[in-house]
Amino acid sequence: MTAPAPGNVHPIGRAKSAPSLAPIMNLVADGMNQVNAVILDRMQSRIPLIPELAGHLIAGGGKRLRPMLTLACADLVGYAGSRHYKLAAAVEFIHTATLLHDDVVDGSGLRRGRKTANIIWGNSASVLVGDFLFSRSFELMVEAESLKVLKILANASAVIAEGEVNQLTAQRKIDTSEDQYLDIIGAKTAALFAAACRISAVVADRDEREEQALDVYGRNLGIAFQLIDDAIDYESDGATMGKDAGDDFRDGKVTLPVILAYARGSDEDRAFWKAAIAGHKIGDDDLAHATALLRRTGAIADTLARARHYGQRAIDALGMFDNGKAKAALTEAVEFATIRAY
Amino acid sequence: MTAPAPGNVHPIGRAKSAPSLAPIMNLVADGMNQVNAVILDRMQSRIPLIPELAGHLIAGGGKRLRPMLTLACADLVGYAGSRHYKLAAAVEFIHTATLLHDDVVDGSGLRRGRKTANIIWGNSASVLVGDFLFSRSFELMVEAESLKVLKILANASAVIAEGEVNQLTAQRKIDTSEDQYLDIIGAKTAALFAAACRISAVVADRDEREEQALDVYGRNLGIAFQLIDDAIDYESDGATMGKDAGDDFRDGKVTLPVILAYARGSDEDRAFWKAAIAGHKIGDDDLAHATALLRRTGAIADTLARARHYGQRAIDALGMFDNGKAKAALTEAVEFATIRAY
Repeated sequence: MTAPAPGNVHPIGRAKSAPSLAPIMNLVADGMNQVNAVILDRMQSRIPLIPELAGHLIAGGGKRLRPMLTLACADLVGYAGSRHYKLAAAVEFIHTATLLHDDVVDGSGLRRGRKTANIIWGNSASVLVGDFLFSRSFELMVEAESLKVLKILANASAVIAEGEVNQLTAQRKIDTSEDQYLDIIGAKTAALFAAACRISAVVADRDEREEQALDVYGRNLGIAFQLIDDAIDYESDGATMGKDAGDDFRDGKVTLPVILAYARGSDEDRAFWKAAIAGHKIGDDDLAHATALLRRTGAIADTLARARHYGQRAIDALGMFDNGKAKAALTEAVEFATIRAY
Repeated sequence: MTAPAPGNVHPIGRAKSAPSLAPIMNLVADGMNQVNAVILDRMQSRIPLIPELAGHLIAGGGKRLRPMLTLACADLVGYAGSRHYKLAAAVEFIHTATLLHDDVVDGSGLRRGRKTANIIWGNSASVLVGDFLFSRSFELMVEAESLKVLKILANASAVIAEGEVNQLTAQRKIDTSEDQYLDIIGAKTAALFAAACRISAVVADRDEREEQALDVYGRNLGIAFQLIDDAIDYESDGATMGKDAGDDFRDGKVTLPVILAYARGSDEDRAFWKAAIAGHKIGDDDLAHATALLRRTGAIADTLARARHYGQRAIDALGMFDNGKAKAALTEAVEFATIRAY
């Protein structure tokens, strides 16, 4: 097996050492201007608190990865229309609404390097503006006039909420299994990635096989993305990742790094994890000890290996599509996602 | 002007002193069995907390007035199909999701005579299960396969959320005007009543004029309903109304009774209202004083008079439809709503 020529992998032609989001960002730059215009237009309201609060999060430095995926997948399948702009904006609104509610549920104080909306405006405002954005997302979907797209996104929304409740139920339960964990992140994170990609094939009127392939691509990318996110929670600092390190630890969230370290640990280690996840050991020293255990048991390294596994499955799902800029950009987005911050 | 013969007003033919919901309940009894089956089916989830929490509220003695309106309006316009069952369930899910989030926002402890879900399962679970029901409502709407209905209900959802944020913004502001208050309740309450009625004309494929008439009926009934609700908050007790008396007072909500009493009060009264709404006077004695002021200024009586005004507008909106059981039931539902608990 020979390595592909660099020109095939990065058709933009730049020599580079690490994968980046630059190719996908370049690919969809014009389209994202349209999407951003829709987002800015539709987050407006005659109630000033709504654009103020929504704008804090929306303008707050998110990568808008999900709408970029919708646009890049539309390019991949040769879609030449404009219905996907509103749909991509709808996907971002669903994501934003989820973030607002997540931060209330987790009591988070920092996101994307800034104070969270719930800290600035309170939990009530975050809940209600989240509801507003969620409703707006459905208005945008309806305007795209595809019942099939509506069905996909309405179902994804229900699956996301189900995943969030599942995660809440599993919180502080050290005996959560890897399967249960994968089930949770498949719902709370990967379902929207899958839907964001799939709907491009639907608006482009491609066959079920292509729809399915984009769904598989998005789903596996979403799982890889969340695995890395959960590893980063133990490995980074607030300044680098834009949120508080150890948030998951203090919230008693049983993520894959913890599941692996618990399974591989000594009796003493297990006793520590039990107490920590139950909320009895959440100091800075405890976090440092947890991180040391995660490294010693290889839990972080193997979480990253799992992420690369799902990333590879995402890339392989693109196999049926023609080579070109879009496929290369979607491939490199996966490579970036599975190695970011390392 | 002579009073209409009792037989015209209540074609069911029973002699009765007070209007009730019995006629509308009888009219839609069979249909509500279908709706209730959909509700029970679609609140299920493989995550046990979801049906447990949702079921607490859904089985908790609500009248299901909004889905009854959808069914009664469908009867009024002669709809013979079955698409309205899922839509009526979707309307109830939107309402239920709103209640779950409202109780979190208001920190309520009692609803329909039972502990609220946020007290039993916590705010996080209530927020997330609300999101789930909201998503499920969109799935149900999509299944009814009418883009026009989807547009009406998606817009109503956004308007409701906007109204809730508006209410939050107006909280503790004694200078809220009657217009602002009507704007808030028009959005947070009446928009869903209007949509619940209007969609019946849409699935029945009736003309814009009938759609509009049902919208006006629902909107005015919704306003009347909320006015009475806001009056009851000062006039009843927990056992009678199933929620804590004086909740609005303690939350600093400026409802019409307060607006009228403040406008009509002495300097001393105004000073009291300012302090109370700002949250400085929220004891039981203060509530008793507030209630005394509301009675003395006629604020409660005139809130009820306003409710009857909107109720009459709702009834008059039905003028274009043929007389019959449905029209009589919808009329008596308004009469009931504008006098309930008095």
